[in-house]
Amino acid sequence: MKKKNNKVNAAILVIGDEILSGRTQESNVSFISKWLNDRCGISVDEVRIIPDIKKKIINNILVLHKNFNYVFTTGGIGPTHDDITAESISKAFKKKYEYHSEAFKILEGYYGKKNFNDGRKKMAKMPKGSSLILNPSSAAPGFKINNVFCLPGVPSILKSMIENCTNYLKTGNKKLSLTLNVQTVESNIAKELGIIQKKFKDVVIGSYPFFRLGKVGVSIVLRSSNKKKLNKCSKNINNVLKQKRVKFLKYNLTK
Amino acid sequence: MKKKNNKVNAAILVIGDEILSGRTQESNVSFISKWLNDRCGISVDEVRIIPDIKKKIINNILVLHKNFNYVFTTGGIGPTHDDITAESISKAFKKKYEYHSEAFKILEGYYGKKNFNDGRKKMAKMPKGSSLILNPSSAAPGFKINNVFCLPGVPSILKSMIENCTNYLKTGNKKLSLTLNVQTVESNIAKELGIIQKKFKDVVIGSYPFFRLGKVGVSIVLRSSNKKKLNKCSKNINNVLKQKRVKFLKYNLTK
Repeated sequence: MKKKNNKVNAAILVIGDEILSGRTQESNVSFISKWLNDRCGISVDEVRIIPDIKKKIINNILVLHKNFNYVFTTGGIGPTHDDITAESISKAFKKKYEYHSEAFKILEGYYGKKNFNDGRKKMAKMPKGSSLILNPSSAAPGFKINNVFCLPGVPSILKSMIENCTNYLKTGNKKLSLTLNVQTVESNIAKELGIIQKKFKDVVIGSYPFFRLGKVGVSIVLRSSNKKKLNKCSKNINNVLKQKRVKFLKYNLTK
Repeated sequence: MKKKNNKVNAAILVIGDEILSGRTQESNVSFISKWLNDRCGISVDEVRIIPDIKKKIINNILVLHKNFNYVFTTGGIGPTHDDITAESISKAFKKKYEYHSEAFKILEGYYGKKNFNDGRKKMAKMPKGSSLILNPSSAAPGFKINNVFCLPGVPSILKSMIENCTNYLKTGNKKLSLTLNVQTVESNIAKELGIIQKKFKDVVIGSYPFFRLGKVGVSIVLRSSNKKKLNKCSKNINNVLKQKRVKFLKYNLTK
């Protein structure tokens, strides 16, 4: 599934019981996906959410790292007993799980020698040979080993760190997108969209119904890395919508 | 990974380019997980998010349906060309993809014969032998085939339908949970939580830092289907927190 021709893809592996139980609403996936798409031209082609179980982390890392150009993990790199991402990834790649000297220094400086207890020291342990992803908000760094980037689960900290991943990323062609918000129901335009999709192989046409602010509508989203074809496809759809007398919504309900 | 001993598990397969691109914030996973946990005693042990690509849907359905007691899919059962869940699952299970007579009648009644166009008819097509999951809000039904439940992606419609899945579900032991919200940092209590976790094999102890309303704290969440052990484990943690003079938060910041 690794793509060629300057197309670069990624998978996200969310590690955490709190997401699977429904206790915590996951929110890093959409942030990372948008960032990878818009900033790096990398498309996210699969996401998996798994529990804090060593064997599952190992198995999933091994599958995803083979099948995608990059893998981003979130969660499980804190100081507690249920933070087992770094240890599991060490096992997956058969690397020693050990203190990273630079990470150790950063954390020791942040907490002070006196308060640098075992839980805090644990955050400096990672697979041998890892590169650090620096953390400007709470010191404890993430790491990169092979094509796997390990980030924390707390959204505000993750956001503060993500820009530091660019040092290690080979970027792809940026994907462009274009949205048409119209006042209709999907089933009124389904046939025509299907015909247009067959004509434009390089454009992905998505259709998403919404009910908001008392309005029923459809967002038609076109995605492509070819601007010319994107515009041509959009013109085709516009013509159909005009023929069908479908109203365009002036304001964007679905950003 | 299918569980025995009255433990029943499930996986969720989210199908949709709009989630992977980051355009739409996924929200069905936490709703389904909570519902399965609280209402049915079924734990969600894996989630995957994949694009609207037939081959990927087929491969993932085949893996998940073998490894979990139940699989819930969301998305891809509407009227447009990118709605390919029903067709793909038919292929996966080598079933004919055909009109379900009851679904056809429901939809014909809802739209009226005159307005029952091809896109709308498509929503009555599903794998031969499917059972319907009725839709009280917008008519188009979901379906169940083997151990796979297919639901729509629009959260409000999904919510209106989910109760109709209980007809086909064998439920498990309900999981109990208990949350302690305390004013400390994880690294202050990490060592002790690790020791207690080792003592209580039947309780899963999760630790989740938060920063909200100007407070820094940790939610310690205990989960188990054994009430006695849950309470005993909670007492052990309470003792440690008292010894460490950790303040309990009176109000629940993290529900």
